[in-house]
Amino acid sequence: MLENTQRTEISSLGEFGLIHHLTSDLEMVQSSTLYGVGDDAAVINPGDQKLLISTDLLVEGVHFDLTYSPLKHLGYKAATSNFSDMAAMNVLPTQITVSLALSNRFSVEAIDELYKGIKLACKNYQVDLVGGDTTTSKSGLMISVTVLGLAKEEDIVYRKGAAQGDLICVSGDLGAAYAGLLILEREKSEFIANPQMQPQLEGLDYLLERQLKPEARTDMVNVFKKLGVKPTSMMDISDGLASEIKHLCTQSQLGAQIYEEKIPIDQLTWDTARSFNMDPTMLTLNGGEDYELIFTLAQSDYDKIKDSPEIRIIGFMQEASAGIQLVTKNNVVVPIQAQGWDSFKSQSTE
Amino acid sequence: MLENTQRTEISSLGEFGLIHHLTSDLEMVQSSTLYGVGDDAAVINPGDQKLLISTDLLVEGVHFDLTYSPLKHLGYKAATSNFSDMAAMNVLPTQITVSLALSNRFSVEAIDELYKGIKLACKNYQVDLVGGDTTTSKSGLMISVTVLGLAKEEDIVYRKGAAQGDLICVSGDLGAAYAGLLILEREKSEFIANPQMQPQLEGLDYLLERQLKPEARTDMVNVFKKLGVKPTSMMDISDGLASEIKHLCTQSQLGAQIYEEKIPIDQLTWDTARSFNMDPTMLTLNGGEDYELIFTLAQSDYDKIKDSPEIRIIGFMQEASAGIQLVTKNNVVVPIQAQGWDSFKSQSTE
Repeated sequence: MLENTQRTEISSLGEFGLIHHLTSDLEMVQSSTLYGVGDDAAVINPGDQKLLISTDLLVEGVHFDLTYSPLKHLGYKAATSNFSDMAAMNVLPTQITVSLALSNRFSVEAIDELYKGIKLACKNYQVDLVGGDTTTSKSGLMISVTVLGLAKEEDIVYRKGAAQGDLICVSGDLGAAYAGLLILEREKSEFIANPQMQPQLEGLDYLLERQLKPEARTDMVNVFKKLGVKPTSMMDISDGLASEIKHLCTQSQLGAQIYEEKIPIDQLTWDTARSFNMDPTMLTLNGGEDYELIFTLAQSDYDKIKDSPEIRIIGFMQEASAGIQLVTKNNVVVPIQAQGWDSFKSQSTE
Repeated sequence: MLENTQRTEISSLGEFGLIHHLTSDLEMVQSSTLYGVGDDAAVINPGDQKLLISTDLLVEGVHFDLTYSPLKHLGYKAATSNFSDMAAMNVLPTQITVSLALSNRFSVEAIDELYKGIKLACKNYQVDLVGGDTTTSKSGLMISVTVLGLAKEEDIVYRKGAAQGDLICVSGDLGAAYAGLLILEREKSEFIANPQMQPQLEGLDYLLERQLKPEARTDMVNVFKKLGVKPTSMMDISDGLASEIKHLCTQSQLGAQIYEEKIPIDQLTWDTARSFNMDPTMLTLNGGEDYELIFTLAQSDYDKIKDSPEIRIIGFMQEASAGIQLVTKNNVVVPIQAQGWDSFKSQSTE
């Protein structure tokens, strides 16, 4: 992607030069940011709010493949996947720090692309980039992002807190990010077999964007506020619906019943799953990286949310002894097995 | 170090199993920690204080060498080197998050050792471990630590703020961590040449500890308070005295004059430098990782600090046009060249 363009070695700038190069154009937009990049620490003014912190580590070859992830998209995703952790707490992200480890195969221009994506995400979500660290690695690229958010204590939603009978809901549609990954993996293997081949990606933009440049559902914070509801428990869907439902059930010591026909799946996701001879429902249960939200609501909130286009009811919480079940389209009740994505398991089978 | 002991593969626990294994015994000691590990984010109560955040990334083969860094010490250092960033702001650290990327050459027992060091540092400094991420890497070990601290705004000390004539001071003694590194590198190359060789480390504990298991000078926060002084500017010494003085001068748009004979050097550091045919002063100027503090104080504070065993005056701030100078023991005035450690430069010369 960056072929035939200028290549500046990072070593020609040095560590401090690179930091200056990457951060000199940063503008702070959050009033809570008192001091950003440039000292031993950034300084945040929480006012009378509580502070939330979450962190993620993205590793080349494990979480992303630069064969098909443009660096700008990768930077965007590194930021939004962290913003999603704040949305999962019903909180808007306010600041991030970004640390990079990169081998000398990366030029200053390549890092600029990565930062363009991070900065675009920060701009779109009104988040301040307030610090970080940049260093070499012996191989590949690693991105560590820490995100902060500020909220009143009474607005924070945890993974625990659901009651028996609560409605289980999701935002958006599921399985699209995994469908996008299937397509990219297919194109990659076909490209390796025949480098002259042109990629066949037409009409698949939605799935590719869901995989390569996902958005965080921070908008749901305002949706809930507007509807006058507060979820009783919530998390984001990064490892697949099955895994996340299991988490919610464990944390509230409950079981759940999910209706297969209620799980929202985009037509394109559906068609793609079929073209790979896969069950579309399996994509939503075990595919990852949708970055939609799964949450529970009191049944008494039903009237408030029933007409919201953003909220789909897919089931309800039940007593723990009833387990975690899927009611299939044929009305058969089967236990849900969580096979969520696990970077350690996936490595061990390579 | 972990030879002949049990080896449990990380993949046998899986990602969630590993997180549970590492975090189930954590106890929170800071009243500001409302919620630690176990949700999409940790929740902190800053009260009426400002929040400080800093982050560091440590990469195997760049920042540490497992040939001579025991994993427990490495964990300790990963934590304390971040605590040092808070001390550099005149703030006590309160919480950290720790993210690890590790290849499958690491067993659960190895990660336990690393975590023992992190937990010991947290215990010694009364810091809560509130979150993190654990994933695989294609090669080696990478540790990303983010540290939080809480302070009243009027107590925070920045890198900028020094005035002309301010006294330049340091805590502790300098160059010891680099002397420790010289010894470890020598033993490593001798071991490679002759694996039967016994390491010659007797009597060198002080230097080895300064390199492998450094302490953060968070105690200085209380020293300043007790003496009734507040530094006008401050940072920690992680890249060598020359580099840090240059930072302080740049940030306050001033110059500095340092007296070589005033730079505190331990006798063991001195003797070690000499045994390597190196100038001890050069070790303090260009060696890294001392994690002592360098700070400036108003001359009017002289009487308050002159008898403190913790504070050594090494020079004073002067007008920018006079530059950054070293007055040698022979009374010759020479400009100080900052050659501070740079992970990008060091890679480019490999």
